[in-house]
Amino acid sequence: MLENLGSWRRTHTCGELNLDNLGEEVILMGWVQRRRDHGGVIFVDLRDREGITQVVFNPEYNKEAHEKAESLRSEYVLAVKGIVSKRPEGTENLKLKTGEIEVMVKELKILNESKVLPFTIDEYSNVGEDIRLKYRYLDLRRKPLQKNIILRHNLVRTIREFLYKKGFLDIETPFLTKSTPEGARDYLVPSRVNPGKFYALPQSPQMFKQLLMVSGFDKYFQIVKCFRDEDLRADRQPEFTQLDMEMSFIDRDDLMNLIEEMFVEIFDKVLGLKLERPFPKMSYKEAMEKYGHDAPDTRFEMFLKTINDIISDCDFRVFAEAVKAGGVVKAINAKGGAKFSRKEIDELTDFVCSLGAKGLAYIKVNEDGLQSPIIKFLGEEITNKILKEMDAEPGDIIFFGAGDEKTVNLYMSKLRLLLGKKLGLIDEEKYSFVWVLDFPLLEWDEEEKRYVAMHHPFTSPVDEDIPLFDTDPGKIRAKAYDLVLNGSEIGGGSIRIHRSDVQEKMFSVLGLTPEEREYKFGFFIEALKYGTPPHGGIAFGIDRIASIFAKADSIRDVIAFPKTQKATDLMCEAPSFVDEKQLKELFIKVDLPEDMLK
Amino acid sequence: MLENLGSWRRTHTCGELNLDNLGEEVILMGWVQRRRDHGGVIFVDLRDREGITQVVFNPEYNKEAHEKAESLRSEYVLAVKGIVSKRPEGTENLKLKTGEIEVMVKELKILNESKVLPFTIDEYSNVGEDIRLKYRYLDLRRKPLQKNIILRHNLVRTIREFLYKKGFLDIETPFLTKSTPEGARDYLVPSRVNPGKFYALPQSPQMFKQLLMVSGFDKYFQIVKCFRDEDLRADRQPEFTQLDMEMSFIDRDDLMNLIEEMFVEIFDKVLGLKLERPFPKMSYKEAMEKYGHDAPDTRFEMFLKTINDIISDCDFRVFAEAVKAGGVVKAINAKGGAKFSRKEIDELTDFVCSLGAKGLAYIKVNEDGLQSPIIKFLGEEITNKILKEMDAEPGDIIFFGAGDEKTVNLYMSKLRLLLGKKLGLIDEEKYSFVWVLDFPLLEWDEEEKRYVAMHHPFTSPVDEDIPLFDTDPGKIRAKAYDLVLNGSEIGGGSIRIHRSDVQEKMFSVLGLTPEEREYKFGFFIEALKYGTPPHGGIAFGIDRIASIFAKADSIRDVIAFPKTQKATDLMCEAPSFVDEKQLKELFIKVDLPEDMLK
Repeated sequence: MLENLGSWRRTHTCGELNLDNLGEEVILMGWVQRRRDHGGVIFVDLRDREGITQVVFNPEYNKEAHEKAESLRSEYVLAVKGIVSKRPEGTENLKLKTGEIEVMVKELKILNESKVLPFTIDEYSNVGEDIRLKYRYLDLRRKPLQKNIILRHNLVRTIREFLYKKGFLDIETPFLTKSTPEGARDYLVPSRVNPGKFYALPQSPQMFKQLLMVSGFDKYFQIVKCFRDEDLRADRQPEFTQLDMEMSFIDRDDLMNLIEEMFVEIFDKVLGLKLERPFPKMSYKEAMEKYGHDAPDTRFEMFLKTINDIISDCDFRVFAEAVKAGGVVKAINAKGGAKFSRKEIDELTDFVCSLGAKGLAYIKVNEDGLQSPIIKFLGEEITNKILKEMDAEPGDIIFFGAGDEKTVNLYMSKLRLLLGKKLGLIDEEKYSFVWVLDFPLLEWDEEEKRYVAMHHPFTSPVDEDIPLFDTDPGKIRAKAYDLVLNGSEIGGGSIRIHRSDVQEKMFSVLGLTPEEREYKFGFFIEALKYGTPPHGGIAFGIDRIASIFAKADSIRDVIAFPKTQKATDLMCEAPSFVDEKQLKELFIKVDLPEDMLK
Repeated sequence: MLENLGSWRRTHTCGELNLDNLGEEVILMGWVQRRRDHGGVIFVDLRDREGITQVVFNPEYNKEAHEKAESLRSEYVLAVKGIVSKRPEGTENLKLKTGEIEVMVKELKILNESKVLPFTIDEYSNVGEDIRLKYRYLDLRRKPLQKNIILRHNLVRTIREFLYKKGFLDIETPFLTKSTPEGARDYLVPSRVNPGKFYALPQSPQMFKQLLMVSGFDKYFQIVKCFRDEDLRADRQPEFTQLDMEMSFIDRDDLMNLIEEMFVEIFDKVLGLKLERPFPKMSYKEAMEKYGHDAPDTRFEMFLKTINDIISDCDFRVFAEAVKAGGVVKAINAKGGAKFSRKEIDELTDFVCSLGAKGLAYIKVNEDGLQSPIIKFLGEEITNKILKEMDAEPGDIIFFGAGDEKTVNLYMSKLRLLLGKKLGLIDEEKYSFVWVLDFPLLEWDEEEKRYVAMHHPFTSPVDEDIPLFDTDPGKIRAKAYDLVLNGSEIGGGSIRIHRSDVQEKMFSVLGLTPEEREYKFGFFIEALKYGTPPHGGIAFGIDRIASIFAKADSIRDVIAFPKTQKATDLMCEAPSFVDEKQLKELFIKVDLPEDMLK
């Protein structure tokens, strides 16, 4: 028979009591994590958000409570009134904060029952993710997920409290906004009141936050959902959460200083760690050269090196041709990797080939000499030069990538990470930040035969590079900055263009016609003409940061109700089919190709 | 010629300097609010978010800065370096915090220019709302709007900091979720990855927050956008912001106490006012009886009174028939309203008729006798009884509403508000809270000939009313509570059903078939079976609260980028037409009726 709370209220949580409370009468409420019967006495681990407390039903202590407790099963919801007692010697559990005490129950209320669960709350290795996502509300009872959600709460709380103190205004921007033809695919929302027209869910509040600077709000932030209808990878969600910020009357260093200060506070309050400042800075160029990637994992070294100079006229056709075609040859010294077996090397080869490599040349430096399929083509002199350049010692293995720069960087950067893991070079306890700076403002688009903005056309060039608009636009550096943590880009932003003369130069180098300009950015360009202050900002991926802090395998593990890679919610079964009537009101029709209709 | 910030950084805001700073060299940045030339000296009111400071360009003080200042126009963006000086006697402006000082400029940087604005920033009565919404970023520079947005920021900041302290977890719930056939119309989002299927934007996170209680998160809150595709009224927006909360192991009073404590803190920190606790409580029944509305404006009395007993067998046909038909006759004494002219009474009559009344009977109590079109029918005895019941005195006027209860309450409650305003009874400085309690759990639906849930089918009945499920379900009171401020419902919530036996009773009295139940609430009902704790929550309308605090005419005035009543964003022109290609990818087609195609 279930009972109501009545006048009972919790005196403590299940994570709170210790020897200081001995003898106190307390009321606890929570879930039956585990029930054990031992010598006629029933022991229940009572669980709530804060922890677990052992509550004891002893018939000699209270017969009625013990009788009621006979019916208890896993995940029943209880309220118990009892006395805090010391556990008998030898039965303490020092892994629990409450492990030296137990509560001798005088009175029990069973607040609710539970069906048998589809999986038990403490087991999680044997259950597929699909079933866990379907019963997400049960999976969320598991300690690791509870911890993740609470960590994320602490993260956003700390960010908010920090930015409040710094004078940032928390201002909301619209969710039902305009579809922009740039960027990723939009999620669209048909309008009932404006037939045939659509809203788009925001990919970011970029234009709105810049407009808030035009309005004079000076310092803005928002922790806000954004939406991108992309093909989903393991670590992407169709809806994701961004810390979005913008400030006026500042330059790059002001913003970077503020962000570093924020992370010092986050590390202190969320992780209990002391973070050193300033964070290291690295140019985009250096990152691409040494790591092959603009989000370098700086927890370990083992850099890539371009060896074009050394091998440009060697007899190994693959290398020579790569250089001749304007490409690169990059090498990496996997220190201690000479021990890799044939099979391991094959696996590494398969790995890089799946990323676009044609093969994976290597030189193993054994105690008793070199082992390599390519040294016979390279010849001794070049081989020795390579070994010297790569600081090769016995026990090392050197891998090579050759081809166009983009592809080589792609697979060699991934190879570097894989080798780092294999060789145990990555300290999982380490948090390694780096600012990546001096991105190019423009990229040459080979297909369209014109420059395109590397970030967006409102990103400001570095002041001293402005004259290059007229001479060598490809060399202009942007006032852009990415913050990278452990090889993940956790945030990125820029100082924006606030002067219309610079904006004009930018559009003209992009080759936009007045019509395109108007269509793509019309009202926003107009807005910039009414006294725009110097301003800049940054945006951080909250899901990403939380998952790095939680050491989670997937951002799904730091989102209360995530979607699958097919963008579905298995719990509430979204998306779903809807009534014809609903669609009619919205002036749309489903239009499936014939082969899907079957 | 525009200049860059260079190494200049603000030393102060424009709202900060006073006599304590005399002689200091300062750097200010902001917008030209106003420029005056006086005796060869240029005075500029420099404006930022924090205020206005007078900066002075005197050719005798600095010739170069003065020369540059010649080009300044309204809304130019400046940086000035200068010395804080005392204003000459007689020129102080004590309305400004900075009004006793001015800054003598030594150096000026013009950071940006501005085109001539479509409207000036300090004028706002002559410009239509459409043009202001189109240039929202300029309208937002106006002091009243800046104040509103900052007030709203302070409101959400205070709420968050309060709930953080109280142990609430800030947890995000999904935006791309499932369409529910209940409630208002959903905004739909077609899925590209799941052809023919749609997400719905949430009308509220109701089910998710209850599931978080099932998961054991204990205390949840979120300040979150919600969406309703309703026909828009003046004070509605398609997207609106809710403070959403839920707690476990509590009953109604715990939640109400917490909310009162929260508002005490909000009033202190946001408005600088001391708020008295506890808030008054009123039953739904009393609210409907005395105010004709479940969101009573308790800033003034002037109650409605049902006078069925007095007039039930009078000769005034309208009254007698209303009673006979099971309706009501309600009267209100507009104290001091005997002075209303014929024209004013006609206007009041038109007003109530527009709300469904057939007319507006009245008795004017003049010094020299009664004046009324109906007393000849009522007769002296009944008239006197009415006058006594209504405490009528010379100078008063009594108005009557007769008909079915719902209609009478509708127009008489609005009439009460209008009379309150006309007679100056509403103290605009007053904040009057009231809890409305004991709502009926069920309403009889005459059309469907069955009970429907007044809130939703998961609202808990009052414990002692549970036996009424079997005898008189219409009498069951809900554990629901609305918080009303100055006649606006600012929040509402309930203790939820957590016991499946009670849930079964509820479904059975609602007459839902197992199929309907499954279709409408399937996964949620399943979730409730795995050990659901007692829980309850509430949700508040942030836009509404902010607009009451700001004394704004419309919630548009407390939203940075609001939509019109046609649900359009005039600034960025959303919604808009989109590419065929985008629709094709989403497997939908626009389907306009023929008469719209022209």
